Parts: sequence; C-alpha cells; structure tokens
Amino acid sequence: MADAARALSDEAEVVPVSLGDRSYEILIGRGLLEQSGARAKALGARKVGVVTDENVAAAHLPRVMESLTAAGLDASAVVVPAGESSKSLDRLATVVDGLLAARIERKDLVLALGGGVVGDLAGFAASVLRRGVRCLQAPTSLLAQVDSSVGGKTGVNSRHGKNLIGAFHQPSLVLADADALDTLPEREFRAGYAEVAKYGLIDDPAFFARLERNWRQVFAGGPERTNAIAASCRAKAAVVARDEHEHGDRALLNLGHTFGHALEADVRYDGARLVHGEGVAIGMAMAFRFSAALGLAPEEDAARVGAHLATVGLPTSPKAIPGGVSDAATLLGHMRQDKKVEGGKLTFILARGVGKSFVARDVDAEKVLAFLESELA
Amino acid sequence: MADAARALSDEAEVVPVSLGDRSYEILIGRGLLEQSGARAKALGARKVGVVTDENVAAAHLPRVMESLTAAGLDASAVVVPAGESSKSLDRLATVVDGLLAARIERKDLVLALGGGVVGDLAGFAASVLRRGVRCLQAPTSLLAQVDSSVGGKTGVNSRHGKNLIGAFHQPSLVLADADALDTLPEREFRAGYAEVAKYGLIDDPAFFARLERNWRQVFAGGPERTNAIAASCRAKAAVVARDEHEHGDRALLNLGHTFGHALEADVRYDGARLVHGEGVAIGMAMAFRFSAALGLAPEEDAARVGAHLATVGLPTSPKAIPGGVSDAATLLGHMRQDKKVEGGKLTFILARGVGKSFVARDVDAEKVLAFLESELA
Repeated sequence: MADAARALSDEAEVVPVSLGDRSYEILIGRGLLEQSGARAKALGARKVGVVTDENVAAAHLPRVMESLTAAGLDASAVVVPAGESSKSLDRLATVVDGLLAARIERKDLVLALGGGVVGDLAGFAASVLRRGVRCLQAPTSLLAQVDSSVGGKTGVNSRHGKNLIGAFHQPSLVLADADALDTLPEREFRAGYAEVAKYGLIDDPAFFARLERNWRQVFAGGPERTNAIAASCRAKAAVVARDEHEHGDRALLNLGHTFGHALEADVRYDGARLVHGEGVAIGMAMAFRFSAALGLAPEEDAARVGAHLATVGLPTSPKAIPGGVSDAATLLGHMRQDKKVEGGKLTFILARGVGKSFVARDVDAEKVLAFLESELA
Repeated sequence: MADAARALSDEAEVVPVSLGDRSYEILIGRGLLEQSGARAKALGARKVGVVTDENVAAAHLPRVMESLTAAGLDASAVVVPAGESSKSLDRLATVVDGLLAARIERKDLVLALGGGVVGDLAGFAASVLRRGVRCLQAPTSLLAQVDSSVGGKTGVNSRHGKNLIGAFHQPSLVLADADALDTLPEREFRAGYAEVAKYGLIDDPAFFARLERNWRQVFAGGPERTNAIAASCRAKAAVVARDEHEHGDRALLNLGHTFGHALEADVRYDGARLVHGEGVAIGMAMAFRFSAALGLAPEEDAARVGAHLATVGLPTSPKAIPGGVSDAATLLGHMRQDKKVEGGKLTFILARGVGKSFVARDVDAEKVLAFLESELA
C-alpha cells in the first residue's frame, strides 16, 4: 500500500487476510467511503466501474463518485435493482456489458458498493470480465461487512439453488464503512447479526458470551459494534487463510447454511418472507437442535442458542416464516441440490456445544428427514 | 495417474503441462475417445457431463457415451448448436443449467467434446459451476488440439468483442484423438493449421522451415501430423508454464490475433465469411507486413510468411474476406476494445523475422491506422 493510503488508515481497524499473492486488507471504520477514490488510486487503477443497487445508490453513490472523481479517476456506475433477484446470470450479463461499455481494463477496478447481493454479483462480474479484473469490496450492510465481502466467494443463483454459479475471486481491498450501517433498516441489521453470532457458535464461546452480554451496544453502534465487526472479520479471515477453496475447514462457515439455504430456496428467495440472515438464524438454531437430537450436543446449548437469537428478534424456527414452508421431503430435496453435497452424501455443520462446531460429512438422509418432520410438526 | 490409465497411454504421445498443483497431461494419439470412460474414471469422477455441439455429437457422441457408461460412470450430455454464436452468456446459462440438472458435483467432471467453441464454452461452464468443477478437454478439431484446449483460457464473446467474458480454468486432462481429424472438413483443418504455423513463427524457425517442407504430409495425416500436433502442444505448454495468466510472455501466443480478432468482430463472427484460424492467418501475415513497414523485420520474411500461408490455401489479406471489411478507423476501433489493451495503449505481437516474435506494448495508434489504410487500399 502506498504511504498516502497507509496514512489514511490510521483510524481504521485493519484486518489482514493472508493468502500469498492474493493477500489483502479489510479496513473497518468511519468515513471510509469518502476515501474510496484515494484507496482505488493507491491500487493503481485508472478507471473504476462501480456496481451498486438502487437503494444503496440513493444513500451512498454520490459521495463515492465524488471521491473517485476527486482522485482523478475515470468513474462510471452500473446500478441494478435491489434484492436477491439480481443474483442471476441475466443480471450478470447486464453488469458485465456495462463494465465493458465503460472500457474497464485488466489493471482497473470494479468497486462493489452494497450488501451481499451486490458484492456477490459485482465480484463475480469482476472475476469473468476480461478473465479477471480486480475488485474493491465496499460492503454497506452488516452481513456483507462481516461475511460476504471477505473471502472471495462470489456468484449468482440458479433455479436449482443458491450460489450454484460463481467463482473464487479475492478482493484487492475491503472498505467496511461503519457509517453506512447507520442508515440500515433494523430488520437488515438484525439479519446480519446472525452471521456475527455464527463466529461465536463455530469456535469462539467467549465471543458468543460477550454478544449475549453486549448485543444491545452492538445494535446501538459505537465501539462495541466496530469491535464485533472486526472480531467477525478476523474469524473469517483465519478460516479463509487456512482453506481458501473450501476443501475442508472453510465449510464451518456454513453453520446454519444448509438448512438456511433450503428455506430460502423454498420461499423462492422472497426477501419479504425471509432474508438470508434470517435463514441462517433459523438454520443455526436447527443445527443445534439437530445436534442435540443426534445426542451430539447438550439440549441446554441448543436452548441457549435459540434463546439468544430470539432475544435479538431473529426467527429460530421454520414455522416462523410467514406463509409457512413445504413438507420435510421437499426441504430435503432442496438440500440435495445444494453444492455442499459430494458423492450424493449430505454434509452438515453440527456442534458438540456452543463454540464446538464441526464438519459432519455423510449425514444419514433418513435422520435429516425425521428431524425436519419434527421441526414442522 | 492410476496404473490402468498409464497403461492406456503407451501408444499416445504425452505432453506434460507444468503448473504446480494444476499440472496435467495432453495425450495425442489414435483411439483416445474410446478411452474417455477409463480416463475419466482414473480421475475419480462418478458422473460426467459431456458438452458438445450438434455436428460433433453426430460424429463422436455415441462412442464417448458408450465408453463412459462401460466404465461405470453416470453420463449425461448437453448438446449446443454448432458455431461461434454458441459462445454467448445465454448459451453458457443453458449449459450450466443442464449440468446442474444432471447433478454434476464438485468431484465430477465436465467433458468438453468438440472444437474451440465447445472447449471455450464448456471450460467456462465448468469453471463457474459450483465455483469450479474439473474439466476434461477432448478437442476434435486441429485448432482445438493445438491451441484452445491447452492452457486454460475459457470464455464467451460479448457484443463488445471476442472472449471478453471468461476465466482461466486449467483442464485436468486433454485427450487429442488424431482419429477425430479424419472427418474434419478441409477448410476447418486448414484454419487450424494457421495456429500450427504460428508456433514456428513465434520462436521456432526450424519448425516453420519443416512445415514449409512437409506441410502436405501434415494435411494428409499419419506420423508427421501427430508430430506437428505434439510439437505445437509442447510449444504452447512451455509458454503457459512460464506465464499462466498472461502477464507477459503468454501474450506471444496472440501473434496474428489482434488483427485477426478485429476482422472476426468486423464480420460479426460470421463463420461463412471468416473462421478464427483464417483470421489468424490474415493477422499473422499482417503482423509481419506491419513489422516490415515499421522497419523491424526484413521484407523478405514478411513475404515468406505470406507465401507459405497462401501455399496451403489460407487467406493472407483482409481484402480476401468475402464481402469485404470496414474502413481502417472502424477496424482500429475493434482493436481498442480488445482485452489486450492496457491503459489505453495498443499491444501487438510484432516480429524481427521468422521465429523472432516479441510483445510490443505502447504501439502508436496513428501508425496502426496508416498501416490498415495501406492494407485496404
């Protein structure tokens, strides 16, 4: 990083992601979007193609464009509709076409400005544009800041399931501007919190206990929120550094996601009924109840997980989804199509307790079915 | 490679491609398509999704499916229309959807059976399917055997230009079955020969001289053809091993391609008027004439290149394209959109003589324009 950019980061928390020649930094702090021009320039870009959605554009695009232009960069923007439906190959085609029309070249930058949908879509577009252009992730939702903007997973959905089409494409920099969360709708902030809690549940019981004590300060903003974001990013960066392409450990990050994705698929990604973080919250509560039902985890840990998620206002049961969901067999069918199926066997992240998650390959489909039936009864 | 598979390769020429944990082998010989089942099984696949086009399906699909099934593999096929128009994001969506419907998983294989279009499309589909599934390239055209199936470049075209959307995705194995070339239309074989000659022109004057002497035997088939294919694959593998992602040397493989792509774009990829190899032939002849015009190469080397290409029946001038092409300024516009433009400067592969090619960055657009005008006069 150039000296000028390093000076800029004095007040931001810096979380390094160690991936050899694909290493990068996550910066977490206030006012980072206003620095996007200087940051992009420090990366050696001449042109920057911003990808964002209509909602985020209204809230943040003008100051980002101003920052880019003030830094002497040739800036353009592609704006997509807000919502999960933008994670499609059709929308990818639109975005790539816009970036090509703006003549973004190999040494330039794609700037993903938005939540998880924009990050996944723009990151994927950057990865396939001219067979790979660098991407600067500027996540504006809590979920994107603590999860999707870090680690290089990008992609879109298929009618066969979520994220089935995509690429591993590490960003060159992540700018997590804490100011952006101030304007986030509460439901969206809460959904992102599910991913924060996830890091405690995976392997950090002390972090989960701290969240149980201090979750109100995390929701209110201020230093405890920034700390929680930084702790989450550090946890994710450590897992990604160990296993970039998800051949092993990285699967732990999918705690709650196998059940959660099945529920999202079942409501056809209708965000009015279920957003991703809510699916993860239900999925994590289910993963702990399933672990307890299999005799792996104490019943009280499952109860404790459900209680904390419910306390912050997150759903913890598939029955809480407005309009209800399909039967157990249909939900199991969604899981079979999930890409975390290998050789026809089901892979789940299960737990021996809070902070004691593990990858369980070869989970018996019959037991999953029986558990799902009990959940829906 | 398993022992059984190694035994199978006794009669095939083996060209290794050294890329660390992405290393693989190119096998060149007769009867390799009949071995595709055993080869896929040796790679540990359980399911194989074949991607091919209508023409190749009629000629080769039944024996490939039979080989896969006989090896105990779960085989399915996605058949696309023949021709360059299948290199589109729309067609990619169809192929990926077909592979997902066949439940191809991360440890399975995509088998690209066909020429350059199928290889580029299927390789790209494999790279984005579940964020990366392995690909076995079974090239059935000379062009695909000596060029596009080797080196991991995959992709589709955009309205802004050729191959502007894609990925680097190395195959896990290349099976170049010499038998497949016996049924190839002569025009297509000849077009592929342009890429064979290219390797001599880049940095192997002895190989080019041998082609000048023995080209009739290469066209007729037999050992001289297999030798030429293996020599081409070795040349390409050496360049790819040095520079997998085209940051430097690999650009040499684009000899003839900057002019060639501009011509292809100008006829809107209408294969009836110009196929890729013909564009490359014209482009190589132009690159040598341009090098001579700039005082870099002797006039006689430019004449010699044009003479050999013309002798085998390849076009060597843009004026040879049926229906003609646009004016010089329009052709230059096509080049500017080519992805080999960096920082707005034009990159060309020029030559100091036969076998003495080099990467020339920062070529003056005015000189290109003047040269194009002289070519079209």
